[in-house]
Amino acid sequence: MTLINANEELNHEVNESNSDGSKHDADLDHGERAFTADQVRVGQRAHDLDRAHVFHSWQAQGPFDPMTILAAEGPYIWDGEGQKLLDMSSQLVNTNIGHQHPKVVAAIQEQAAKLCTIAPQHVNDARSEAARLITDRAPGDLDHVFFTNGGADANEHAIRMARLHTGRTKVLSAYRSYHGGTQLAVNATGDPRRFASDYSAEGIVHFMPAYQYRSYFGATTEAEETQRALQHLEDMITLEGPSNIAALILETVPGTAGIYGPPAGYLEGVRELTTRYGIIYIADEVMAGFGRTGRWFAVDHWDVTPDLITFAKGVNSGYVPLGGVVISDAIFETFRDRVYPGGLTYSGHPLACAAAVATINAMDDEGMIGNAERLGRDIIGPALHEMAQRHPSIGDVRGMGCFWAVELVKDRTTREPLAAYGGSSPEMNRVIAAMKSGGVLPFANFNRIHVVPPLNTPDADVRFGLKVLDEALSIADEYVI
Amino acid sequence: MTLINANEELNHEVNESNSDGSKHDADLDHGERAFTADQVRVGQRAHDLDRAHVFHSWQAQGPFDPMTILAAEGPYIWDGEGQKLLDMSSQLVNTNIGHQHPKVVAAIQEQAAKLCTIAPQHVNDARSEAARLITDRAPGDLDHVFFTNGGADANEHAIRMARLHTGRTKVLSAYRSYHGGTQLAVNATGDPRRFASDYSAEGIVHFMPAYQYRSYFGATTEAEETQRALQHLEDMITLEGPSNIAALILETVPGTAGIYGPPAGYLEGVRELTTRYGIIYIADEVMAGFGRTGRWFAVDHWDVTPDLITFAKGVNSGYVPLGGVVISDAIFETFRDRVYPGGLTYSGHPLACAAAVATINAMDDEGMIGNAERLGRDIIGPALHEMAQRHPSIGDVRGMGCFWAVELVKDRTTREPLAAYGGSSPEMNRVIAAMKSGGVLPFANFNRIHVVPPLNTPDADVRFGLKVLDEALSIADEYVI
Repeated sequence: MTLINANEELNHEVNESNSDGSKHDADLDHGERAFTADQVRVGQRAHDLDRAHVFHSWQAQGPFDPMTILAAEGPYIWDGEGQKLLDMSSQLVNTNIGHQHPKVVAAIQEQAAKLCTIAPQHVNDARSEAARLITDRAPGDLDHVFFTNGGADANEHAIRMARLHTGRTKVLSAYRSYHGGTQLAVNATGDPRRFASDYSAEGIVHFMPAYQYRSYFGATTEAEETQRALQHLEDMITLEGPSNIAALILETVPGTAGIYGPPAGYLEGVRELTTRYGIIYIADEVMAGFGRTGRWFAVDHWDVTPDLITFAKGVNSGYVPLGGVVISDAIFETFRDRVYPGGLTYSGHPLACAAAVATINAMDDEGMIGNAERLGRDIIGPALHEMAQRHPSIGDVRGMGCFWAVELVKDRTTREPLAAYGGSSPEMNRVIAAMKSGGVLPFANFNRIHVVPPLNTPDADVRFGLKVLDEALSIADEYVI
Repeated sequence: MTLINANEELNHEVNESNSDGSKHDADLDHGERAFTADQVRVGQRAHDLDRAHVFHSWQAQGPFDPMTILAAEGPYIWDGEGQKLLDMSSQLVNTNIGHQHPKVVAAIQEQAAKLCTIAPQHVNDARSEAARLITDRAPGDLDHVFFTNGGADANEHAIRMARLHTGRTKVLSAYRSYHGGTQLAVNATGDPRRFASDYSAEGIVHFMPAYQYRSYFGATTEAEETQRALQHLEDMITLEGPSNIAALILETVPGTAGIYGPPAGYLEGVRELTTRYGIIYIADEVMAGFGRTGRWFAVDHWDVTPDLITFAKGVNSGYVPLGGVVISDAIFETFRDRVYPGGLTYSGHPLACAAAVATINAMDDEGMIGNAERLGRDIIGPALHEMAQRHPSIGDVRGMGCFWAVELVKDRTTREPLAAYGGSSPEMNRVIAAMKSGGVLPFANFNRIHVVPPLNTPDADVRFGLKVLDEALSIADEYVI
């Protein structure tokens, strides 16, 4: 399929409306864009300047040839040649409402005209309203918000709060997890991005996660995985010393590490163990929060209230950098009369908070949370499970809402991955390239393709993206032993 | 002086133009504002919601009664009662171009309409142009920029780059410094904000700074302070083991820690020692950079090129959260073929970078850097030195550009501070309250008042602020022994 065909098909299909009417703006045009020669030249100059002066995240800077983005709207981006791509990655799984949502753009423009910035020690109405909207949606008594710039510093501050609240220092964190790029956050991380920074990790202890497809406990059923993973966790607590452990930090649904949702009963068990041993339970919902799983917070799928929830990304779709920690009343009480020893210049930034207010309200008004749940239940999940019947390269399909992983293997029996843990492979690179040339920007990690579109992606676009994935998987099938 | 009188006087005075014509917008009205009852109610509701839901930086949350900000423009803010205050703090020394600069507001609005966010692995024209403008202004071969969300993560990443580049782990950092609120950055910090987080500080070693007013070396002249401080630094390097030390991190002019500029020859000595021992020299210019001292970078006052410069705040006046690391060619080469193991979702955020582009261009177009230098040389410095002759409570006056500290003492001979290191005092609180009731929002730390207005504050407003400070100092004088 050539890109032009793909786009022609899309232009036809996006005129259908969603079954629940949640299409976020009828005026949005996802059709072709004509870029002027000047616009393309601006993009080329940007590319040249980028290679001369921009140092990129998680890259070797030399061989890297980044894609230029000329424009983005809804679930689409246009690259440096003006080619349209369906963004099934939501960038870094953050544009939960898609690109350039008109209500959020307007809110940013209005707040910019009114008040761009103010120091964290003052009261600002956008900040107050964002805190109200977030705490209204958070479970239990999580009634307070400490705003940060992103997910990494949210996790850093959550750990600090837990340490000071408990007077303990150790932090339990799962392998196959990601908690951010700053030193403490990357120490807590349980994936290979941690390896280069594995010093100064005093007090960080990793445990085996509940990851049923590749069970670390030899479990063959979900119930067995839950039981053994909880037993392992309690064993770790016992062996590390319960009275030394300040916090357990856990992605409710681990994100880049594999979108492996917890088996039934696991999170309830984590809550019970942490409560029993006086350990603060930090739920990292930087990626899973704000509708990604089809609920405001992913913990809402289970009967669990953590002590702290960290967030970023979806809270305002990343339109302005923002993260934070939602804090229980008990932990708030610790800092009622005692100074909280942490802060940052942009805590509760008015522009970022105004974007959060508009994003949360747009999600509500346009039913995006329910739409995400529906997309997962009625379209993405069934399509991926159906593909698994036809593609022997699919080892596992799992997810919920707009948060799905397809794990690719060479052999379903041995579950040998199509790329090794921590690496890429020529096989995976071919699959990714096929998706791009089919008109889709994918999210890939090791041997997995993640299907993580914006929550308000029109049904026809989601189906288009799945079709391109389906076709690309025929390449993966070639490598099945 | 009552607030109303202060404002009346101001309204009269701001019609004068600056001697260099740098008044940033003749249309700006710094006069009285009438707030409607509705606007005041919005502010009251914001205050109530804040107390219910917002967790503030560096505060005990209970007794804290934050000031509401209803509006801000140029060098002024208006509090919850509609009272106007001259912002001599530039918030947290970040609004270098004042509040709501029309060109930067317009740039944010335009970028918001065009493209709010894009993942860090792509090319974006605002990001590329910001990197070009920053590296054009950075000294020597600092030709590459890694963008972060703020100063703390900029310092975290600079330290990681230095560790990986050298293969060493120790980091030398000065006492009486501040490097940010995340764990590694606060470990590197040398002021009391570090005390609560003094674990997991593996590899961080603090040395005595060159701080002439309270010399740690018994020095009585500037030359002696430089010589002894450099000898101390070399002794520390020898005793810690040169081959173990990855980096030295140093604020070019330490900010909140006291705006104590280096004595003549000190930074040149630091550069020589770090080069000799293969130590990466990280200049933290989060507060001192982007015109604050009257130069683009504070190191430009001396003949020094660090290996890495960290920045935030002034780069876009904090209108959108942004920070970063400017990187030498040699360190860039380390990561040409080797993956840099760090990153963040909002690295090179288009909205933040567009604000930086507009800010840097506005600073250039309106001569703000030169204006900052002039304000320091012709108005702030002479006024403070003149006050020191009349107020026995002034122990020391020091600074440059729009970056000045007044150190208050009870006794000029013993230099006993008006508030102890790490604390506040009833005496200082009275001085601060007098400035506020005089119509000025001050920046205070321990026993110091910092005079840190926006770089484009009209001369008359600067003189008004200095006059209010002058009057408030009569309170401090009451405590002189």
